[in-house]
Amino acid sequence: MLTFDVLATDGEARRGKVTLDHGSVETPAFMPVGTAGTVKAARWSDVAGAGAEIVLANTYHLMLRPGGHLIREMGGLHRFVGWDRPILTDSGGFQVMSLAGSRKLTEEGVLFRSHLDGSPHLLTPERAARLQLGDFGVDVAMVLDECTPYPATRDEAARSMELTHRWARRGREAFVALGGGGGRSAQFGIVQGGMFPDLRRESAAAVAALGFEGVACGGVSVGEPKEEMRAIVEATGPILPAGRPRYLMGVGDPHDILHAVANGFDLFDCVLPTRAARHGLAYTSQGRIVIKQARYRADAAPLDPACACATCRSASRAYIRHLFMLGEPTAGTLLTVHNLTAVLDLMKGIREALAARRYAAFAAEAARRLDFGKDTR
Amino acid sequence: MLTFDVLATDGEARRGKVTLDHGSVETPAFMPVGTAGTVKAARWSDVAGAGAEIVLANTYHLMLRPGGHLIREMGGLHRFVGWDRPILTDSGGFQVMSLAGSRKLTEEGVLFRSHLDGSPHLLTPERAARLQLGDFGVDVAMVLDECTPYPATRDEAARSMELTHRWARRGREAFVALGGGGGRSAQFGIVQGGMFPDLRRESAAAVAALGFEGVACGGVSVGEPKEEMRAIVEATGPILPAGRPRYLMGVGDPHDILHAVANGFDLFDCVLPTRAARHGLAYTSQGRIVIKQARYRADAAPLDPACACATCRSASRAYIRHLFMLGEPTAGTLLTVHNLTAVLDLMKGIREALAARRYAAFAAEAARRLDFGKDTR
Repeated sequence: MLTFDVLATDGEARRGKVTLDHGSVETPAFMPVGTAGTVKAARWSDVAGAGAEIVLANTYHLMLRPGGHLIREMGGLHRFVGWDRPILTDSGGFQVMSLAGSRKLTEEGVLFRSHLDGSPHLLTPERAARLQLGDFGVDVAMVLDECTPYPATRDEAARSMELTHRWARRGREAFVALGGGGGRSAQFGIVQGGMFPDLRRESAAAVAALGFEGVACGGVSVGEPKEEMRAIVEATGPILPAGRPRYLMGVGDPHDILHAVANGFDLFDCVLPTRAARHGLAYTSQGRIVIKQARYRADAAPLDPACACATCRSASRAYIRHLFMLGEPTAGTLLTVHNLTAVLDLMKGIREALAARRYAAFAAEAARRLDFGKDTR
Repeated sequence: MLTFDVLATDGEARRGKVTLDHGSVETPAFMPVGTAGTVKAARWSDVAGAGAEIVLANTYHLMLRPGGHLIREMGGLHRFVGWDRPILTDSGGFQVMSLAGSRKLTEEGVLFRSHLDGSPHLLTPERAARLQLGDFGVDVAMVLDECTPYPATRDEAARSMELTHRWARRGREAFVALGGGGGRSAQFGIVQGGMFPDLRRESAAAVAALGFEGVACGGVSVGEPKEEMRAIVEATGPILPAGRPRYLMGVGDPHDILHAVANGFDLFDCVLPTRAARHGLAYTSQGRIVIKQARYRADAAPLDPACACATCRSASRAYIRHLFMLGEPTAGTLLTVHNLTAVLDLMKGIREALAARRYAAFAAEAARRLDFGKDTR
């Protein structure tokens, strides 16, 4: 099931609430990434404690390890991993193209070899639906798409988009045939079209027509310059169906989130805050902290004196730096808890500003204050 | 400060309470090992949640990283690491002999090179006291001793013991001169004497005469057969001063703990439960579990259905195995929380049995039931 209530609007931006099989999610919302059924370096109590109401997991990783069959046997992904709030899974398509040992794209789907053991797998729109709905039983399944690479010519982007549309139809039919939609689970379509606003408009209309419970914008944050990404966000966000949740895939830079919310997006995910944490980078209200720097050696302050997370309530910068220098994974855990809290607190601030219809002022102030830095990998 | 109240006795065994600068500890007690200021793979909230009232940290690790000076500058070890309950530190002597890059033992102390960067350090009875009391500010400092190796001839053991006694006098004088003892902190002497009961008796008398607030039995669990260790425990435990806490160093096998409690020991520490956890070995009331085994692949049960720890309340064997196979450090965290709880629950059971004066029956039943296995390293 999925119901979406828009509680307030402020320009194109919306404050809403998505209700799913495993609970409701206040939007705009950020989804921490729980790759293979775990948010790296964290336990579920940490993820919930940081304020997450929904997490994302990766179908590609899960189909390889532990495999859809085992997850089904264990009663679905929620019961297997021990997280009882909503879960959204991607379709696996994006990671097949970026991680698999080899892959061949055909009309039918993607034939690929596992990066773990070289075993062959075929991912089709139907199989993606079966894995997510039948095996995992997630709250939100993403339809299989082809994430148009960057750069792409207009012709390449158009051909890729058309394949995505044909797969979207097949994926939707499979999902509905398996009993999805309506009272059980939800499926989001994905708008492609590269960096071409007219293709994005065409794709938005085509995807909206297929009856998905929500619509995502894919194919951004794939290497393009910020200005191009923002142009696509501006061209796409406002024309997606107003009555359904709008998800901007793979975007987690706070400045990009602030911009996308202003353009009507409701859902976000990104590995950035958790990956940066494991590399020793902390997000704070005063900018970013690279914890291994010698300047924090005797710093008794918490990562962010303005933060109330479990890490900031209990550990100093000096101690976290000590753990990081020791190579203790606990340093990554402490930073993960903090960074997730920082992003989820930002989303809370966004929601409050939207409810009060003072979003423009909030976003301008937050953009000035925040410097969460780049991916460290 | 240290006060020790014996609340009940059952044969040689005692149920007691040790009150220290940072709080009290119900005995018999197990001290989780927090090597360089952190119990590996765990946060302090986990250690407290598992029921620990006191932890042990290693002077050798801390003096090298982050160094005594920094810890002092940060306001002592408790404030630096964020643990506000009692801490006991070892003297550093044992780990210098087992870990340092090179070392030379003289009457003055041990000259060694750091295993991290080759830097030279001199550890003396006076420096051990200064580090623990002046820099760390711990609740219990251990005097520097020479841990007699195994095997050792009677002459070797006697010479080593005599050096330990001379160091004990110097260490005690330094500790008292620094303001330790009485109202501030406490220091334990260490009985040596190898595998020779008469030397142990001589050592117990010599150490008891020096006024330490507690007395430890060292030089066991150093490679000797179980029967030899048990003979020394039996020869030493009952003759240590009855009015002071008795600490059996480095012993953590549940069967050994049960035996040592029967011989009057009150305090224990061991890396075994936490190290085994990181290697995928779980202690359960039905024996040990090697979590990577294929038999747990689809096992929806918690590690131990009889356990109420945070891990057993939230994660199945199948999920923990999945995390272990992924190489996620979170698997080690989940097992660490469980294993610490298992050992601390055993100590709780021991205390209850002592209070009810049914220790012999409890120990016999527990010894039958428990198989926590060997060190996996």
